[in-house]
Amino acid sequence: MNNFNKAIVLISGGLDSTTTLAIAKDHGFNCYGLSFDYKQRHISELDAAKNIARSMNITEHKIIKIDLAQIGGSALTDNTIAVPNFPTDGIPITYVPARNTLFLSYALAWAEVIGACDIFIGVNAIDYSGYPDCRPEYIKAYENLAMLATKAGIEGTEFKIHAPLIEYSKAEIIKKGISLNIDFSLTVSCYQADDNGRACGKCDSCRFRQDGFKNAGKSDPTIYQ
Amino acid sequence: MNNFNKAIVLISGGLDSTTTLAIAKDHGFNCYGLSFDYKQRHISELDAAKNIARSMNITEHKIIKIDLAQIGGSALTDNTIAVPNFPTDGIPITYVPARNTLFLSYALAWAEVIGACDIFIGVNAIDYSGYPDCRPEYIKAYENLAMLATKAGIEGTEFKIHAPLIEYSKAEIIKKGISLNIDFSLTVSCYQADDNGRACGKCDSCRFRQDGFKNAGKSDPTIYQ
Repeated sequence: MNNFNKAIVLISGGLDSTTTLAIAKDHGFNCYGLSFDYKQRHISELDAAKNIARSMNITEHKIIKIDLAQIGGSALTDNTIAVPNFPTDGIPITYVPARNTLFLSYALAWAEVIGACDIFIGVNAIDYSGYPDCRPEYIKAYENLAMLATKAGIEGTEFKIHAPLIEYSKAEIIKKGISLNIDFSLTVSCYQADDNGRACGKCDSCRFRQDGFKNAGKSDPTIYQ
Repeated sequence: MNNFNKAIVLISGGLDSTTTLAIAKDHGFNCYGLSFDYKQRHISELDAAKNIARSMNITEHKIIKIDLAQIGGSALTDNTIAVPNFPTDGIPITYVPARNTLFLSYALAWAEVIGACDIFIGVNAIDYSGYPDCRPEYIKAYENLAMLATKAGIEGTEFKIHAPLIEYSKAEIIKKGISLNIDFSLTVSCYQADDNGRACGKCDSCRFRQDGFKNAGKSDPTIYQ
């Protein structure tokens, strides 16, 4: 496909956002990757994001530092809260307040500056761990906001938030990624991976990933601690 | 009035947000001030925000560093773009892409962590310099997003974005502030104030402020360069 429109793609270094980037590239978008250094526990994800951006040869990759530790309230940003090693009821403590809203807001700002109207985010409403900001109605509300929030919106730009994985199971994401030749060994999903990107194998995110490879009938290239 | 609900109040150090804070306090809210260090040109605004937070004796004041220079696209965040000294047609180059969306997103995150449902922002749709993210329809869209974006929203919290000045003229804001005993000499509005908070007297923001005091029939305590 040929499509030289610019798109901002949020890339975390994980499996979902990497597949999302591959889909955006497959649609012919000229991709600008955006990652965040928010003092997350799994900082090895950021190394993974850099490696993925390089290996997938995208136009630009920006890493923005944001200080979510000052806000706190999540096991991923507050060192005094432990990451649970078992499934929990309801929305888990790994939920980071308003995280996707912040991420999309930076993406929207950059989109406006470079003249992009397309933003890709790898959220997923099925295996989504119960996070509110991974639901289709949330994505729609953000598109509505983006139109009203920006100079570009007033001037007629229709921002589109693409969430191509939103209805996919983890197994379907893995199959899609493999069909687009992603090397999943580059990706890190674990909430508490070590500095070399080796996964704990115990947290929610590891469980979803393990089940995904199993259900997809594919071998899991993840390296565990 | 007595109301011990917590509220996040965005305070920039300027005249509008200071009046907004005074209104929130007057309504009896327990106020948590939030400011941003975004390498803005008028860094003396942040000193003003600190002085205001102290003099108005609020519960907590957080200053979050955000790197808008990496995003660029505005005379306020990109040193290679000059602040114009004359009124311009359309939305001015001092517009910072998606700024209020970013600010509200941090406020929303903090609100969720401390259990607040009220966020105050000093936007103003009349003397607003043509910024899209200062309009009532934008505020409504953000409230809608906040409900869908958060764990608190799913659990029934109704976030309210208060923009009490949205229909006020600058003169009305000044009169309201004076009625609430604000010392406007503590505030800085200028886009290019010097390190001592002295205003240029030429930029859009200075002009709106000068006209405001004149139209309110009040003496202007601003110190000019």
